[in-house]
Amino acid sequence: MNFKKTIDASITPIGSLEVLSQAEVAGLKQAGENGLYELFRCCVLAILNTGSDSDNAKTLLQAYPNFAIDIVQQDRGIRLNLLHAPADAFVDGEMIRSTREMVFAALRDIVYAESERASPLLDLESGSDITDYVFHFLRNARMMRPGEEPRIVVCWGGHSIGALEYEYTKEVGHELGLRGLDVCTGCGPGVMKGPMKGATISHAKQRILNARYIGLTEPGIIAAEAPNPIVNELAILPDIEKRLEAFVRLGHGILVFPGGAGTAEELLYLLGILLHPANRDIPFPLVLTGPKSTEPYFKQLHSFIAKTLGFEAQQKYKIIIADHESAACEMALGMQQVFDYRKKNNDAYHFNWQLTIADDYQRPFVPNHQNMAALDLHKDIPVHLLAANLRRAFSGIVAGNVKEQGIGMIEQLGPFEIHGDREITDPLDELLAAFVEQGRMKLPGSDYVPCYRVVK
Amino acid sequence: MNFKKTIDASITPIGSLEVLSQAEVAGLKQAGENGLYELFRCCVLAILNTGSDSDNAKTLLQAYPNFAIDIVQQDRGIRLNLLHAPADAFVDGEMIRSTREMVFAALRDIVYAESERASPLLDLESGSDITDYVFHFLRNARMMRPGEEPRIVVCWGGHSIGALEYEYTKEVGHELGLRGLDVCTGCGPGVMKGPMKGATISHAKQRILNARYIGLTEPGIIAAEAPNPIVNELAILPDIEKRLEAFVRLGHGILVFPGGAGTAEELLYLLGILLHPANRDIPFPLVLTGPKSTEPYFKQLHSFIAKTLGFEAQQKYKIIIADHESAACEMALGMQQVFDYRKKNNDAYHFNWQLTIADDYQRPFVPNHQNMAALDLHKDIPVHLLAANLRRAFSGIVAGNVKEQGIGMIEQLGPFEIHGDREITDPLDELLAAFVEQGRMKLPGSDYVPCYRVVK
Amino acid sequence: MNFKKTIDASITPIGSLEVLSQAEVAGLKQAGENGLYELFRCCVLAILNTGSDSDNAKTLLQAYPNFAIDIVQQDRGIRLNLLHAPADAFVDGEMIRSTREMVFAALRDIVYAESERASPLLDLESGSDITDYVFHFLRNARMMRPGEEPRIVVCWGGHSIGALEYEYTKEVGHELGLRGLDVCTGCGPGVMKGPMKGATISHAKQRILNARYIGLTEPGIIAAEAPNPIVNELAILPDIEKRLEAFVRLGHGILVFPGGAGTAEELLYLLGILLHPANRDIPFPLVLTGPKSTEPYFKQLHSFIAKTLGFEAQQKYKIIIADHESAACEMALGMQQVFDYRKKNNDAYHFNWQLTIADDYQRPFVPNHQNMAALDLHKDIPVHLLAANLRRAFSGIVAGNVKEQGIGMIEQLGPFEIHGDREITDPLDELLAAFVEQGRMKLPGSDYVPCYRVVK
Amino acid sequence: MNFKKTIDASITPIGSLEVLSQAEVAGLKQAGENGLYELFRCCVLAILNTGSDSDNAKTLLQAYPNFAIDIVQQDRGIRLNLLHAPADAFVDGEMIRSTREMVFAALRDIVYAESERASPLLDLESGSDITDYVFHFLRNARMMRPGEEPRIVVCWGGHSIGALEYEYTKEVGHELGLRGLDVCTGCGPGVMKGPMKGATISHAKQRILNARYIGLTEPGIIAAEAPNPIVNELAILPDIEKRLEAFVRLGHGILVFPGGAGTAEELLYLLGILLHPANRDIPFPLVLTGPKSTEPYFKQLHSFIAKTLGFEAQQKYKIIIADHESAACEMALGMQQVFDYRKKNNDAYHFNWQLTIADDYQRPFVPNHQNMAALDLHKDIPVHLLAANLRRAFSGIVAGNVKEQGIGMIEQLGPFEIHGDREITDPLDELLAAFVEQGRMKLPGSDYVPCYRVVK
Repeated sequence: MNFKKTIDASITPIGSLEVLSQAEVAGLKQAGENGLYELFRCCVLAILNTGSDSDNAKTLLQAYPNFAIDIVQQDRGIRLNLLHAPADAFVDGEMIRSTREMVFAALRDIVYAESERASPLLDLESGSDITDYVFHFLRNARMMRPGEEPRIVVCWGGHSIGALEYEYTKEVGHELGLRGLDVCTGCGPGVMKGPMKGATISHAKQRILNARYIGLTEPGIIAAEAPNPIVNELAILPDIEKRLEAFVRLGHGILVFPGGAGTAEELLYLLGILLHPANRDIPFPLVLTGPKSTEPYFKQLHSFIAKTLGFEAQQKYKIIIADHESAACEMALGMQQVFDYRKKNNDAYHFNWQLTIADDYQRPFVPNHQNMAALDLHKDIPVHLLAANLRRAFSGIVAGNVKEQGIGMIEQLGPFEIHGDREITDPLDELLAAFVEQGRMKLPGSDYVPCYRVVK
Repeated sequence: MNFKKTIDASITPIGSLEVLSQAEVAGLKQAGENGLYELFRCCVLAILNTGSDSDNAKTLLQAYPNFAIDIVQQDRGIRLNLLHAPADAFVDGEMIRSTREMVFAALRDIVYAESERASPLLDLESGSDITDYVFHFLRNARMMRPGEEPRIVVCWGGHSIGALEYEYTKEVGHELGLRGLDVCTGCGPGVMKGPMKGATISHAKQRILNARYIGLTEPGIIAAEAPNPIVNELAILPDIEKRLEAFVRLGHGILVFPGGAGTAEELLYLLGILLHPANRDIPFPLVLTGPKSTEPYFKQLHSFIAKTLGFEAQQKYKIIIADHESAACEMALGMQQVFDYRKKNNDAYHFNWQLTIADDYQRPFVPNHQNMAALDLHKDIPVHLLAANLRRAFSGIVAGNVKEQGIGMIEQLGPFEIHGDREITDPLDELLAAFVEQGRMKLPGSDYVPCYRVVK
Repeated sequence: MNFKKTIDASITPIGSLEVLSQAEVAGLKQAGENGLYELFRCCVLAILNTGSDSDNAKTLLQAYPNFAIDIVQQDRGIRLNLLHAPADAFVDGEMIRSTREMVFAALRDIVYAESERASPLLDLESGSDITDYVFHFLRNARMMRPGEEPRIVVCWGGHSIGALEYEYTKEVGHELGLRGLDVCTGCGPGVMKGPMKGATISHAKQRILNARYIGLTEPGIIAAEAPNPIVNELAILPDIEKRLEAFVRLGHGILVFPGGAGTAEELLYLLGILLHPANRDIPFPLVLTGPKSTEPYFKQLHSFIAKTLGFEAQQKYKIIIADHESAACEMALGMQQVFDYRKKNNDAYHFNWQLTIADDYQRPFVPNHQNMAALDLHKDIPVHLLAANLRRAFSGIVAGNVKEQGIGMIEQLGPFEIHGDREITDPLDELLAAFVEQGRMKLPGSDYVPCYRVVK
Repeated sequence: MNFKKTIDASITPIGSLEVLSQAEVAGLKQAGENGLYELFRCCVLAILNTGSDSDNAKTLLQAYPNFAIDIVQQDRGIRLNLLHAPADAFVDGEMIRSTREMVFAALRDIVYAESERASPLLDLESGSDITDYVFHFLRNARMMRPGEEPRIVVCWGGHSIGALEYEYTKEVGHELGLRGLDVCTGCGPGVMKGPMKGATISHAKQRILNARYIGLTEPGIIAAEAPNPIVNELAILPDIEKRLEAFVRLGHGILVFPGGAGTAEELLYLLGILLHPANRDIPFPLVLTGPKSTEPYFKQLHSFIAKTLGFEAQQKYKIIIADHESAACEMALGMQQVFDYRKKNNDAYHFNWQLTIADDYQRPFVPNHQNMAALDLHKDIPVHLLAANLRRAFSGIVAGNVKEQGIGMIEQLGPFEIHGDREITDPLDELLAAFVEQGRMKLPGSDYVPCYRVVK
């Protein structure tokens, strides 16, 4: 074990936690010290660990075994005393401002999620309540800007990609920024960082001072994919499903770069929604893009979709290979369509209320051996349900790959088993094998041991 | 009955109601259409009626019998359609911006108050919960500005004062503004307007662009004392006691100008608090000031306080006659003391958490014939309790003078009766008689019929 | 002689003089200490004397005989030490910010005018050079805001008007501000102040933070008509003619309130320009307005114009009596026409380049006994020339009334004599007599001794 | 010849040329069309050619033979029509904003330089007039910000450096930005770009929105070292000497990265100034830094300085190898010293007036065969003069390497000859040979043919 250089520090909030009532401060302190302390500590550690190359949550936690947070209640508000914190998060003893903002964003979101979870007024089994919940969560994180025209481009893709692919995401981000578009990602390294970095440079060229770099994450993923410090708006949604809903309702269009199981999960989630009859006429720009070297990857994905979800699903996206300018142009055009549509329909620009998301997509899926084995992957169920189940399969694999809890289960009980029709599971198995082959399952340097087994 | 010129218009929110969930919009619409509609309509009418010279709520409501509000739910948010609205609130068919802000502030506060009233988490019998409630209410109204140094001067005094006294309040406001101080009042005409008007001019001279003109009112008083349009931050607290608590916790010092029963109520409330042993060391600048002509008035008030609350109470304030510059200087010095004290004690600048307010002062007093008759005004009870009861006596008289409900009661059952020791009630009677004599009970032009009777 | 309370102070620049080269500082110091010192001292005294009720420059100067300015050169820039300065310009020992800005605006303009006067590149006999000079002068004073839509309303009228007329100018200013219009005046008391004061309140109501209150004056007039402290942009043009040109090229429309000789001068100047054939199609909103009591005044003026300049001149303006709302509406409509015209013609919004101003109107007129006597006021000269000469006649009378030099001449040599055709001089004499009768020649309280004599 | 993709476009000013008088527009048009047209065209081409990898001005000009600029005079201001402009400067047909700003900065500076050159008031033979000239030039370019604390770090070094060295400059820039420091460079590629790019990212992390990326160039160098588009403030000084003076008076400290002849020129210039007795006590942070691989380079430079200028000169700087954090920390500490010193001495923060620059350093050196041959490089002249002459020798070599005119001379007459004492010329020859060896004379890919010959 390689212990890292650490520092002790004391910080006060910037942003949304600056004005708290005494009861709220007491509540934060209590929540932080009891049940939620470990969760909060883990999120903060991930945030402070910004430049890390590891995507294994356990490794990260073990590298700073003595890291601790003391929540202090003052008459004036709250203060955090950090002990043995990663030194890289500080410059000359002072915490980098974006990092400080993110630490308090974590506190804000964890406590908000907890208080809402306990609320008797909210029925989290109801789809419309979940949508409302996501809305309130994002509003509490101050992510709604009324009246601003659509320009949030969500970028999905792997946190573990090669240098060439990374370079390409920067180039696309640069082109997005030149066109005044904002970037929203899962806020980790790789595809989550490249477009933001490229856009930072081009926003500077275009003299855009209020550009947004939005990061949406969740407690299970943040340790593996620590938010990069360009993110200037961070939200830690309580679970995967709400995070995905936040992506599709907050973003105005989505760019998919090459990735692994997580990216496939996201793409299937979105296709399942766009295939819903109620959403047929809602414009939703969706572009898959990568450098020349990723052509086989995208062809295989394209073919997998054809074999499982069919031709109609293929019409929902456009694949652009090795042309960062066209990818960005396509998005800029899409934004215009979204704008026209929302204006015409008197819909809000800041939240996509009109999109119908079936309950199946909203309810959390708990990835364990039993649930994974029970997934219904048969050709005869409706395409919409099939997409949802395929999404869950990938979700489970992500958990087994990088999430602390998932890794633990696999260590204990062996790989998840996946059953189903060969017409479905064969293409699935091929796709997963290719991901492993292409090194898309883990950050480079570590050997990948599959956390799943397709039962034939 | 003199019907006024009206206009129909449709308005959308600015400020805090721009980003609403669909459930919230539905809730607003429902709340506005059912139980709260009348309250909302009455507040809006008062706001639109900004330039009115009447302080009789019934008169105002009768002048616009057809005024109606239609709350419209759009996909994008909320919209209000106003029918037969007072034409003075519009310029070339468009509502004056400050008025529009205030209309939505009213909607915001009424619905917030309602939702909190229903909350199972809040115990409005508990003093600390009430303080928390006031805090949340003001934060929801976006009145907390973290880190800003103390500079909010609350100005109390009559809504019905002579031209000379009005001119003096403008001069004091002008001096406050020259010193960079902000003004907070009950937001009606008279003393509630003069200091703001004076400060607007001097803030312009000092090139202060972000000056604050805060109005704190409550549903029962707003119709009689319509917010003047200089107010750029309005909150409609749910009742008198919370409004008073908001004044003393949000403001950093208080200036009392000549007034009538309402002003006496406010002064007694504050003296009662400052006399509490726990508050002994907390600096709280309190200045009573007026032009030369008001010297007898202040002398009588000073003497009334001596006779009822005693010498110590007199040490809590300073009376400055006919010297607007000194009055403002005294406040500026006081602000410095407040700043030093809060900084030293790590207390927030934006909310006076340290001030102890006894439960007696926080619980609403319902002014009716029974409660008024039952007030304990005897020399042998603690001075602190006596101040609270005197405060209530004046509160009842205000209700009987200008509040719709109070006026109704008096019309039906005759004047309130007040009982007590002659050592208390005699000075009280004298003071009230002087108020009537000096025309401090009603706006000029109407004859005053007393709504109370001191029983000897 | 009544000596006033004074103060010593030391001030550094805000605004345009913050960044100076060492040579420039030396130049300022030298200029200020030599020839221009008296001029600068006199302007600063007027600025510091903001609240004065006197319009006699000599009186002002005599009230502060020991007032002195010491210009100090520092490595970092310039500093002014003021000795025996009027105490009213300070709050708790610190100069009011608007006043400080104006003091340095005076220094800026006096030195700029001097340096340009000496420039070999500028031919101030040439009309187009004079226009360029005015442009550069205003740009150096940072009064050009590229791209801003037309909204500068120039208000002309007397510095000496009654309370009722003053109240009316405030009401009109209030209506202008409600419509988002800015105010530009000669920056003294009376009509120069009222509209600004009214607009300050209504700009606050409309939440307009960047409103402009422009004052254009000249060294000969500033002592008599000290800039009111609401002015947030001040320019001291070198002479009357350039000041008038600045009004008509910077402003987008003009409101004329009741006034005396100065107002008549301004109106004749503008009519002469608008009557020029080249300007026929250029929209230029011109409204004459006042309360009911000024109806006879405006009727007489209207009739004087008919008798001297004829029917066509009457078509250039609109008279609106006792309707402040209509006066402002008319201006708002006019702004729209100006906007449309300039947009269509690719003309700048910030300077009216297209307006043709004949050389006669640009060359300074020196008001002395010889020049006044020589004015050609005959019916047979072109209307355009006649307007110019009538303008000069009024200009001379203003000098004799309020300018230091003019007052001196009159004291020494008796009143100016005015010759001409009876068809011209009779209406002129009547108009002037009416001005005297109505008390429009001097501030109230002083008896008016005419400084002119119409020779018949 | 490889012709590039071009575009036609029409642009209007942003920034300082938005408000022009008609005479100024006419002057610009005339200046641009006559003598200055070629210079302007060349500068604009360099600016539009932002991403170019060539440093040969002739190549650049030949790649766009048909590029032309048409200066159009409108009533409202100026407009540029660009014909056959490099397409890379545009996004979807619209010019990148930073590029547009720079085009008009070029126009502003060229015309300003021309008008001042012609001014009869300026004696450009006098040292203090030259300093004043530089001051006015920078002020006209709006580069002075009064009151801002010292934080401008000038970065010098080669435009032609390896990937590893480039990466290092980004890392140093990143550390500067983390500490809130601004970056000023010669505004081309290589060292001129790296620190800005690194700082852009870290300024984003620290949420610094108003960071400055200042580029100072001159007409002879701009084509070879086109401004990178991160530059948000550009000035094109009229010649090398004024550009160097601008660097040392505007900047608060200087970082020297590895470079070639140009960097040596800059370093010798600065050392010569710091060695002047009058400057002994003025703090001026000077750090030489590079990655591990540049250790030999810096050692050789260090030794060259010892041999020619001696031990004292070595005390003026600090060499830091392979430690980007320390390099930035050293600068941050230096800024504090500069701040303390200027504050104590009442000196401006925005311009280093106190620094004495001898006339020798200010007068332009014309690099031709005669002047190069005549350089006095002997051991017996004062060290101060020797530094000046060595500076000129390097200046000539830069001209022969990359400037259009210099390249032409060398093509025609062969290499410059350099004479002097062997104690001077031998170390000089060795240093130059090492530069050639290390590929520091030209961008990679082209073979270097020396433009000089040290005569022994």
